[in-house]
Amino acid sequence: MGREVGYLGPPGSFGEQAALLYKGLASLSLELQPFPTHAAVIGAVQTGEVGSAIVPVENSLVGAVRDTLDEILAAPEVCYLHELALSVEHHLIAAPGTSIAEVKAVMSQPEALAQCRRFLDNALPGVPLEAAFSTAAAVQMAAKTPGLAAVGTLRAAELHGGEVLAKAIQDEHENLTRFVAIAREDGALTGDDKTSIAFTVPHDRPGTLLGVLRELAERQINMTHIESRPSRLGLGIYIFLIDFQGHRREPAAAAALDAIERQSSFFRVFGSYPRFAKKPAE
Amino acid sequence: MGREVGYLGPPGSFGEQAALLYKGLASLSLELQPFPTHAAVIGAVQTGEVGSAIVPVENSLVGAVRDTLDEILAAPEVCYLHELALSVEHHLIAAPGTSIAEVKAVMSQPEALAQCRRFLDNALPGVPLEAAFSTAAAVQMAAKTPGLAAVGTLRAAELHGGEVLAKAIQDEHENLTRFVAIAREDGALTGDDKTSIAFTVPHDRPGTLLGVLRELAERQINMTHIESRPSRLGLGIYIFLIDFQGHRREPAAAAALDAIERQSSFFRVFGSYPRFAKKPAE
Repeated sequence: MGREVGYLGPPGSFGEQAALLYKGLASLSLELQPFPTHAAVIGAVQTGEVGSAIVPVENSLVGAVRDTLDEILAAPEVCYLHELALSVEHHLIAAPGTSIAEVKAVMSQPEALAQCRRFLDNALPGVPLEAAFSTAAAVQMAAKTPGLAAVGTLRAAELHGGEVLAKAIQDEHENLTRFVAIAREDGALTGDDKTSIAFTVPHDRPGTLLGVLRELAERQINMTHIESRPSRLGLGIYIFLIDFQGHRREPAAAAALDAIERQSSFFRVFGSYPRFAKKPAE
Repeated sequence: MGREVGYLGPPGSFGEQAALLYKGLASLSLELQPFPTHAAVIGAVQTGEVGSAIVPVENSLVGAVRDTLDEILAAPEVCYLHELALSVEHHLIAAPGTSIAEVKAVMSQPEALAQCRRFLDNALPGVPLEAAFSTAAAVQMAAKTPGLAAVGTLRAAELHGGEVLAKAIQDEHENLTRFVAIAREDGALTGDDKTSIAFTVPHDRPGTLLGVLRELAERQINMTHIESRPSRLGLGIYIFLIDFQGHRREPAAAAALDAIERQSSFFRVFGSYPRFAKKPAE
């Protein structure tokens, strides 16, 4: 596999933070490479321009998670190699020497500003908010604009020479975003793995999903996520996304996957990969 | 119920479009009232400042759908009264008399720009993009700024005196956002209804969700949506969100709800409401 890891840039973004976390976990000498959109990140894995890439798949602040899944569904050669969870923390950042009283405007990606509403209302009442495409772009601008503060990451403050005026200003203090490392192969069997699949069953008959879930429950396989979403395949057809504990090369999981595939009109295994140990409430 | 309908403003937003659709369906003389955040919209229903309100719950461009659900989960007196689906169309809008060749920058809410990437790449290659908090705010700015175009709604063009340079420029042409009308009571029985519930079961034992789904399938009740999300109640506890066909006052649905409640540690019926007839592929 290539040494480059793609992510949604610019440097200083949550995508870069997740890519740095992955680089640490993988203990490999990997080079990080930013791309401008999630489609470009995923495309670079497809073409082999990068060996792997990091994309958000669940509960993200950075938006476009549904888009990420749609892009991956349209890229059959892309597999899940690893999962990662990143605790999202926002900080108030400005040019060095700025005090909170001197802040005349606050800029960030709209979702990030929304996540810090309580702090902004209390500490900076009435101060106008400005929209940016990313928290990293906002920090870059604020670090050189007197009176402008940004909501962003510590890494962006470091990269662009900004100073942190207030730390961890997000309203919710347990805000995990789940990322996956994608590649053209999935993960080796480690004994503590998860598997992600997508499939369609006719949605207008009660009990079809029940049949699928029974294949997992009968084999004592623990499901960790389930989601239904409308598909573009036609009226009444839904795509189900399921994650479960186990590796597709283990006998119980392999038998369940076979049985589910037989009940599905569309079926795809995104891959099996090591379970990320840190959990929301730990 | 009060005559005011709350929505996420400003006028010209998708929230206003959904509120106008609801006003038409309800055939009532309702007055629309914009609020600055989803929390404020939901709070106004709780306090009785408005009789009802419109919020997005699924597959939305406007962001914050997970936030909407979190806010509703935290507001036990709020019920679902009606569902609505709105086909999201984006248009390129500028000051009257502007030609596409004169466009020097394009502004909108970042998600809306992302949804029109293919059109923007082809028709306006290299033209810089600018972020705004809402499509409506972008249209307002573009209508009075020479050389600036915005991505937004026809209604916003009309409100702010903008001219449409290109219609329906979104990459996907079937992009439905699901909204619900919320109030302090749910909908009357119409014979073609849906019911939305949330509940928690221990997630670390295979088969607990299976028991719940069996209660629906055994009664020939068709599930139309299922989703699991991590809860804030502790490690391994997930909240499931399920929508099914039927009204909670019908015997089969009532019996299923009783049985599900007995298997759940947390259980809530958001309400029963008339099914929205227009479906994605019709």
